[in-house]
Amino acid sequence: MVHRVIAAEAPGVPVVDVTHLVPAHDVRAGALTLWRAAPWLVPGVILGVVDPGVGTARRAVAVEVAEAGAVLVGPDNGLLLPAAHALGRITAAVELDAARSRRAGRGVTFAGRDLFAPVSARIALGADLAGFGRPLDPAGLAGDPVPAPQREPTGRVCCEVLWIDRFGNVQLNAGPADVEHLGAVVALGAGATTCQARLAGAFAELDPQQVGLVTDSYGLLAVSLNGASAAALLGIRPGDRIFLDPP
Amino acid sequence: MVHRVIAAEAPGVPVVDVTHLVPAHDVRAGALTLWRAAPWLVPGVILGVVDPGVGTARRAVAVEVAEAGAVLVGPDNGLLLPAAHALGRITAAVELDAARSRRAGRGVTFAGRDLFAPVSARIALGADLAGFGRPLDPAGLAGDPVPAPQREPTGRVCCEVLWIDRFGNVQLNAGPADVEHLGAVVALGAGATTCQARLAGAFAELDPQQVGLVTDSYGLLAVSLNGASAAALLGIRPGDRIFLDPP
Amino acid sequence: MVHRVIAAEAPGVPVVDVTHLVPAHDVRAGALTLWRAAPWLVPGVILGVVDPGVGTARRAVAVEVAEAGAVLVGPDNGLLLPAAHALGRITAAVELDAARSRRAGRGVTFAGRDLFAPVSARIALGADLAGFGRPLDPAGLAGDPVPAPQREPTGRVCCEVLWIDRFGNVQLNAGPADVEHLGAVVALGAGATTCQARLAGAFAELDPQQVGLVTDSYGLLAVSLNGASAAALLGIRPGDRIFLDPP
Repeated sequence: MVHRVIAAEAPGVPVVDVTHLVPAHDVRAGALTLWRAAPWLVPGVILGVVDPGVGTARRAVAVEVAEAGAVLVGPDNGLLLPAAHALGRITAAVELDAARSRRAGRGVTFAGRDLFAPVSARIALGADLAGFGRPLDPAGLAGDPVPAPQREPTGRVCCEVLWIDRFGNVQLNAGPADVEHLGAVVALGAGATTCQARLAGAFAELDPQQVGLVTDSYGLLAVSLNGASAAALLGIRPGDRIFLDPP
Repeated sequence: MVHRVIAAEAPGVPVVDVTHLVPAHDVRAGALTLWRAAPWLVPGVILGVVDPGVGTARRAVAVEVAEAGAVLVGPDNGLLLPAAHALGRITAAVELDAARSRRAGRGVTFAGRDLFAPVSARIALGADLAGFGRPLDPAGLAGDPVPAPQREPTGRVCCEVLWIDRFGNVQLNAGPADVEHLGAVVALGAGATTCQARLAGAFAELDPQQVGLVTDSYGLLAVSLNGASAAALLGIRPGDRIFLDPP
Repeated sequence: MVHRVIAAEAPGVPVVDVTHLVPAHDVRAGALTLWRAAPWLVPGVILGVVDPGVGTARRAVAVEVAEAGAVLVGPDNGLLLPAAHALGRITAAVELDAARSRRAGRGVTFAGRDLFAPVSARIALGADLAGFGRPLDPAGLAGDPVPAPQREPTGRVCCEVLWIDRFGNVQLNAGPADVEHLGAVVALGAGATTCQARLAGAFAELDPQQVGLVTDSYGLLAVSLNGASAAALLGIRPGDRIFLDPP
C-alpha cells in the first residue's frame, strides 16, 4: 500500500525496496540496515518504518543531509539517525505535522501508508521540507550513531556484532584499517570461545573450516567461514562483543 | 513472470505487489487480504491468483465496480468477491474466454501468467471487458462477502477472527462502532479463555501484558498486546469466534 | 541495491525480480530457476547472482543469444548456461573486465551491485558487449545443460528431480512426450517406494491421495498430489532419480 500511495502521489518516480525482512519491532536492526544501505541509495528520499511506538508521542520526522542529496522520512526513534550520520551533516529536520501532511484516508492512520509515503512522494517531486511541519534542532533527534570499535593499549580491538546475514557471516563495527596493526592472523575472542582468524579479501580464499575476517560488500569486517555459518560455529549473536588480539 | 508479461503488454503501467505470502491454496486468506487492501488499490486493475481449482471447470472472470474505477481479474472461486463488495456495486462481469484472451504461449497454461496477466494489462490500457468473454450475472459469482459481527440482546458481540498478522495481532470482523455500547473495557471470550480487554487507539497505549482491542490500520478491531503476540497468549487462530461482552 | 544501481544507470528501464528465494550458494537451484523462467524473460537482459566463488578466479561473463534477443550477465559458474541453451545458440560471450566495467564504488566490490548491475543496465540501453571485456569461446563457459531423461529398452524412463516447489510438487526433467509410450498410468519408483501415478492435465483432476504426473506450467511433468505435498508423501528430494515404468 505504501508503493500504491507513492505511485499515486508521484507517478513515474522510481521506488526501490531495501528490505521487508527486519524483525518485528527491532529498531536497531532496521537502523543498521539503513546505515549499511544508505551510501548506495542517494541521492534520493529514504523512507523507513520500524515503529513500535506508533500512536504514542514519538515524533514523525523528515531529516535532510544536503551534501548527499538525501532526505530521510520516518519515526524519530533512532531508525534514521545512523544512516543520516553516514551520509553527512544533517542540514535540516522537521517534525511532520500529520494534520497538514497526511493523505486523506478512512479515519484510521498507518503512518507508513498515510503520512511517510505521501510526504516522501512529495519531497521526491521537489517539495520543501518546511511545508510539512515545525523545524527541529537535529541535535534533539532520537538515536545514536553506530558505535566505533575501541582500541586498547595492548593492541586489542573491541568490536560489536552489528548483524548476522543469512549465510551466517558476522558483521563487525570495524573495517580492515582498524585491525591493520594486528597482522594477517588475529586471535578472535567471542564469549568463552577463542580461535585464530585470518584476514581475507574474499570468502573463497578461506580453507574449509578456517575462520576468516573478510572485508564484506559494505567495507566492514565479517567473521566468516567459506560455505558455512560462522555465527553457528562460534555461537555468536547480534550485539555480542568480539575481541581481536595479536596472535 | 506475471510482472514480465504485464510489462510487455502494457509498458509503463505501474504494478504494485500486494503480497506473495498467502498460504498455499488458502482462498479465504487471499480473499481477506484483497478485501482489506482494496480501498487503497483503486482506481486500478486488481489481479488475484489463489487458485486450487485451476484446470477444473472453475471459471476465470473479470469483475467491474465502476464507482471505484476498479476491475478485478482472477478465478471465480470467492477470491475476488469480498474485495469487489467492499468497493461498491458490481456493474459488469465477464467469463474470460481463454481462447480469445490468453497470450500465445508454449502449449501449457498457467492462468496467472498466460490469461490473468495479459487481460489485466489490456484492461489497464483501456480495453473493454466485453472483448474478453461472455457477460455474466454478478449474482452468480462464487463467494461470500465478509461476515458482519452479530449483536445479541445481552449486548454481546459475536465476532470472527479474520486474520492474525506477523506480530500476533488478531483482526476481528468488527470496528470500534460495533462495540461502542460496551464501554472502554470489555470481557473477551476466546474458546475456554476469558480476559478483560481495553479499547485503545494504539498498541503503545497498552501496559505490558494488557490485552487490548486496538483499531488497526484497516479500521478494524484487533486483539493485541504491546510488543507481544496476542494470538499466542490466548491460543487464537484464524476463523475462531470471539465474544465481546459487557465487563 | 542492485535495483538502485540499475535505476541510476538506466532510468526508466523496467526491472522484474524472478526470485530471491534460491538457497544460499546453491548454483544448481539458481541455474534451474533461470532455465525454467528464461523463455518468458526475453527479449531482455537476464542478471543472475548465485556466486559462492566470488573473489576467486571464477570469471564474470556476459553471454548473448541473439535469436532470443537475450544477454545473460553473471558469474561463469554454471548459473547462466542452462538458461542460455534453452534460449538458443550462444552467439557471443565476453569476460567482464571489472576495471573497465564496474561502477565507481567505495573500495569494496559486491559483484552483483558493482559489476553485473551496471553492465546489465548499459546493455539494456544498447551498449555493445565488446565494450565490456575480452571475447570468450562459448564452448569454454562453465556448466552443463539440464540433463535429458534416459529411455531404456524396457520402456523405462529414468528421470531426475529438478525442483520441488512450495506446494510439494516434484518437477522432473521430462515432458509428456517422453512418457507417451507408457500410457495413462505408470509405475513410479522413487528410492525404495513404488506407486502408481496417473497422467493428468491439472492437479484438480486427481482424486484425493492419488499420485499424479501433471504437466506443470513450464511444460514439464510434476509428481503431484491434489492439495498435498507429493514430495513429503514419497520422501523425494531435489536431484533424486525417479523411474517411470509400464504399469
